[in-house]
Amino acid sequence: MNERVTGPGEPTLEALQARLVDFAAARRWEPFHTPKNLSAALSVEAGELLEIFQWLTPEQAAEVMSEPERAHRVRDEVADVLAYLLQFCTAVGVDPLAVLAAKIERNEHRFPVPDGSADVNPEVDDQPL
Amino acid sequence: MNERVTGPGEPTLEALQARLVDFAAARRWEPFHTPKNLSAALSVEAGELLEIFQWLTPEQAAEVMSEPERAHRVRDEVADVLAYLLQFCTAVGVDPLAVLAAKIERNEHRFPVPDGSADVNPEVDDQPL
Amino acid sequence: MNERVTGPGEPTLEALQARLVDFAAARRWEPFHTPKNLSAALSVEAGELLEIFQWLTPEQAAEVMSEPERAHRVRDEVADVLAYLLQFCTAVGVDPLAVLAAKIERNEHRFPVPDGSADVNPEVDDQPL
Amino acid sequence: MNERVTGPGEPTLEALQARLVDFAAARRWEPFHTPKNLSAALSVEAGELLEIFQWLTPEQAAEVMSEPERAHRVRDEVADVLAYLLQFCTAVGVDPLAVLAAKIERNEHRFPVPDGSADVNPEVDDQPL
Repeated sequence: MNERVTGPGEPTLEALQARLVDFAAARRWEPFHTPKNLSAALSVEAGELLEIFQWLTPEQAAEVMSEPERAHRVRDEVADVLAYLLQFCTAVGVDPLAVLAAKIERNEHRFPVPDGSADVNPEVDDQPL
Repeated sequence: MNERVTGPGEPTLEALQARLVDFAAARRWEPFHTPKNLSAALSVEAGELLEIFQWLTPEQAAEVMSEPERAHRVRDEVADVLAYLLQFCTAVGVDPLAVLAAKIERNEHRFPVPDGSADVNPEVDDQPL
Repeated sequence: MNERVTGPGEPTLEALQARLVDFAAARRWEPFHTPKNLSAALSVEAGELLEIFQWLTPEQAAEVMSEPERAHRVRDEVADVLAYLLQFCTAVGVDPLAVLAAKIERNEHRFPVPDGSADVNPEVDDQPL
Repeated sequence: MNERVTGPGEPTLEALQARLVDFAAARRWEPFHTPKNLSAALSVEAGELLEIFQWLTPEQAAEVMSEPERAHRVRDEVADVLAYLLQFCTAVGVDPLAVLAAKIERNEHRFPVPDGSADVNPEVDDQPL
């Protein structure tokens, strides 16, 4: 199911973040890229991704990538969410990989792996990620 | 302003995405991690990031990281947004770096760099990212 | 399923909208209640309502009001969404009842009632409301 | 600034809520109108309202209704948000006016009116609505 083919041409997150900085600078968009505006734009794009799924049954949602038009929209919205998240991180000086690594470590302590076979239901107030 | 210190210990996006897969598997959370649920969770977390900024003036928002409690919340919500975005990408088999690279290329053609010195206002229907 | 008991004491939407104006004025909150801030706050609260449902199966979601703690959260978030929507309408001078009535009329023409018995699937690009 | 002209023809919130029930029933859309789907749709529409404001300065946002195309979008998105909120309330059996009235009363106690002339800043952890 995974389309990733990592190769010599695969850009890193840092490279894409830098490219977005250049992209905005060349078009003189920095004045609009305030932390407040970018957090709003990120939320708007996340809503557009959710829109694709809002009326789908769980079964239809699981097949979303087998329909080319929807699959294109999904890829497009993922790109938009990631772009605004990186631009937000640039604007506030946060390293997205470092904060995620730190959060996963906190959560590994906060949510110890259950030994037994009991079902764990994340919606009962204990879903971290 | 940038806190990133890239070094040998810096995790890659791919490594963190894989770690999130293991994290969810160990806690048996995969049944909840459907594309529909994860797109909802992503949108909810983006809203929590926006919440930090909703009443701030542009000036206050620009200083958000100089206040420790708010800076901590910002880092925490960035981590949550990125975590759900990566888990969503795993669930639908999308490579986040590849789709962002492709989108930037499309946008470089769609929004050519202006030669002159005219101000470009992204809110006039031409802001891609 | 409906808890509404309309009586002489039932407030109207207009009365509640006016009360919210007084509430904000008494606390000198008007400077924060700009259209931009209020649309952000509305989106944040809608996200908090969605958060209640994000991990629930359709079956669990249908039973959400039978669990007192969740039912309380649902009522609370509905109140917050409606409050910000009304405050936004005050800020921009829009009559929420008039615009909804106009939209329903447009949609009655846009989505004619099917004569036959065919299933109508709103997710196939034709869901207006 | 307020366009409301309340008259004998002004529909009530209850009348519009009932009309939305009939609208969905005539088109057989009830199966899609689950609480979970409607809370997602509400969040998506709130995002579309926010999108209008995301790049605007506070000054531009204050003038949003003086530009006809934007004013139309604002009215349209307000209608969509209110429609989904009412349909959500129908689905879970919540009275939107009653829960808002109750919340305002709670907040009047929670946020007493300051006697003095000190500025009150709602973003300092004490903004209820």
